[in-house]
Amino acid sequence: MIDDLPKGFRAGAAAANFRKPGRDDLGLIVSDRPCVLAGMFTQNAFKAAPVLVCQEILARYGTARAVLANSGQANACTGEQGLADCRATQAMAAEAIGLAPHEILPLSTGVVGAPLKMDLWRAAVPALAQSLGSRDAEGFTRAFMTTDAFPKFAARELALSGGTVRLTVMAKGAGMICPNMATMLCVALTDASVERAPWQAMFGRAVEKTFNRVSVDGDTSTNDTILGLANGASGVAARNKADLTLLEEALTAILGTVAHMLVMDGEGAKKVIHISVTGAADDADAARVARSVGHSQLVKTAIYGGDANWGRIVTAVGYSGARFDPAQVGLRLCGVERFCKGRPVNDDQEEKLAELLKARDVTVDISLGDGPGTYALQASDLGHEYVTLNSDYRS
Amino acid sequence: MIDDLPKGFRAGAAAANFRKPGRDDLGLIVSDRPCVLAGMFTQNAFKAAPVLVCQEILARYGTARAVLANSGQANACTGEQGLADCRATQAMAAEAIGLAPHEILPLSTGVVGAPLKMDLWRAAVPALAQSLGSRDAEGFTRAFMTTDAFPKFAARELALSGGTVRLTVMAKGAGMICPNMATMLCVALTDASVERAPWQAMFGRAVEKTFNRVSVDGDTSTNDTILGLANGASGVAARNKADLTLLEEALTAILGTVAHMLVMDGEGAKKVIHISVTGAADDADAARVARSVGHSQLVKTAIYGGDANWGRIVTAVGYSGARFDPAQVGLRLCGVERFCKGRPVNDDQEEKLAELLKARDVTVDISLGDGPGTYALQASDLGHEYVTLNSDYRS
Repeated sequence: MIDDLPKGFRAGAAAANFRKPGRDDLGLIVSDRPCVLAGMFTQNAFKAAPVLVCQEILARYGTARAVLANSGQANACTGEQGLADCRATQAMAAEAIGLAPHEILPLSTGVVGAPLKMDLWRAAVPALAQSLGSRDAEGFTRAFMTTDAFPKFAARELALSGGTVRLTVMAKGAGMICPNMATMLCVALTDASVERAPWQAMFGRAVEKTFNRVSVDGDTSTNDTILGLANGASGVAARNKADLTLLEEALTAILGTVAHMLVMDGEGAKKVIHISVTGAADDADAARVARSVGHSQLVKTAIYGGDANWGRIVTAVGYSGARFDPAQVGLRLCGVERFCKGRPVNDDQEEKLAELLKARDVTVDISLGDGPGTYALQASDLGHEYVTLNSDYRS
Repeated sequence: MIDDLPKGFRAGAAAANFRKPGRDDLGLIVSDRPCVLAGMFTQNAFKAAPVLVCQEILARYGTARAVLANSGQANACTGEQGLADCRATQAMAAEAIGLAPHEILPLSTGVVGAPLKMDLWRAAVPALAQSLGSRDAEGFTRAFMTTDAFPKFAARELALSGGTVRLTVMAKGAGMICPNMATMLCVALTDASVERAPWQAMFGRAVEKTFNRVSVDGDTSTNDTILGLANGASGVAARNKADLTLLEEALTAILGTVAHMLVMDGEGAKKVIHISVTGAADDADAARVARSVGHSQLVKTAIYGGDANWGRIVTAVGYSGARFDPAQVGLRLCGVERFCKGRPVNDDQEEKLAELLKARDVTVDISLGDGPGTYALQASDLGHEYVTLNSDYRS
């Protein structure tokens, strides 16, 4: 269905043969009018060229008309040449579709350090421009997939006081175990009319509650980018507090849906570890504990093996750097209490736990004390498939 | 050879059948006179019971006569019962060999959360006491091995101004990829006579240059302990500056030898990644970068696969949190320059690198700029064998 994009947006895609011949690896979204822009970007010190260009557009203009995405090359760690190449791709697309270069937001994913293949770009951009209107959300999403097992997108309608608006979110990333290509990209479109400041603010809050809580092996990408484009084509404005709240709730929900798809994909992962931390001194400490557990190779391999080795979880809590009293710490694994107020719970539940650990979803509930800090994180296990995929990526 | 222990030390071992029947899993070292004690302990908030007891002995007495080590149970995260059990094992051994309990340093390694099997201890301690003098450094080392592929120990003599002294070091830990059982234990003995303050100080510096630089997947254990016992039985004192310097150099060298054995073992590891960071703002920033690279799952799997995917290394530098100017960063992989002043070096060296990456030792040299900070770290790769060993540990 073509109409799963919000009003005023069209999508296209083309096969530029960047890595695998004959599959779409170049995607384009164009709005028929300027969009209010929101953006969140990687914290990595080596920001890919397209990240730098998107940040520049966000800071200087705050609006855009199009998104141009490629897979195959990340255009990260490519120096000034990479930046020049990125701007050249903007210029190519701008000429083909009649926009100014700075109205086009570039997104790249693929091998870090590999330069863009400019000759293939030049050959493919005319077909890309001609394809506009021929792709739906799935079609655009497929153009920037890499090792993703399935395309990740969602669309929904939302009734505001002035009428109905649409939200569509398209993402790539093989999720929680850290994208093989070290990149998570996401584009959120709406035809609601919203002002820049509340749009960016709600976007930041929604990402914090969704994408920032599905994780990850700590390999923060050079390219991670989430863009929000609101073009107002529905004629419905989100201006008053009630409508803004509705829009934020819907945005958070749909970003959560797509973030969960990243976790579901989980390149090589067999299980999803749902880590919940409560009772921390503050949310930052709770997050430290959740990430320490979620990134522990020993925890992830134990969960992969279905081993109720809870001592590894408590050990990871212990080296997290968070403030807590060890004598107050408690742990439930799959709902079964294993550690309480700093002491093991030694009733034998091994058989029950072995059964519970066969499930795809494994819960780890950690209580640090009676502080107000909480955090939730979804992490992957670590198995042979991850090693196979990531040790044999480029060859 | 029994005489690889320093003068005045005897070792024994016994099979308590803690996990695998018929193999030594309980070890004892006794000095014929009090030893000046040095110690370094895990930074994990959940310190195992034996760690707490060793810390107490170090703080309160500063001397000891014996080391009592077991494998099978870590006695970590075992609460007050674990502490009581630990003290009970001290008391048992003390009675059997005629010492005070606080003269006996306990070391435990094994499953975190599992309590000591006190009935097996009671049954084995008499045989352990009787075995004193029957084991050499290897014999004691074997008693606290877990998944180690080989015993790690070294002994050497050293000429000080007053005569010759001996240094013997015994360690367990399947090294750089983080001990499966999440524990590294090490005992260093000498028959030199040395005062407490310089002994502890040189010990701290030597550990910082050796054990603290072979790593590790970030899973800091609850039990990590390094003990140094100097009994003076040689009658040779290290008192003047020249002798203290000689002793420190020898201690650093022998700890380095044993630390390298941990890296060589590398439970499931195929390669050793030698990471060198120079030009950082300070040593702490250099260490941040080295650990970020050394702990990156994407870097470790690429090296395992022999893939010259240097972009993953630069990416890990980028999220390390260290201060640097990305435009000044350079990288050599196996001596081949891949990144220079923030730009890729695009001469094709893939074939040469593929050949170099087949070696067991892989060098990663990172230059951050012209600051004075440096750090060196040895890390493991991450392969199928690690997953197999660690997903199937307890079962």
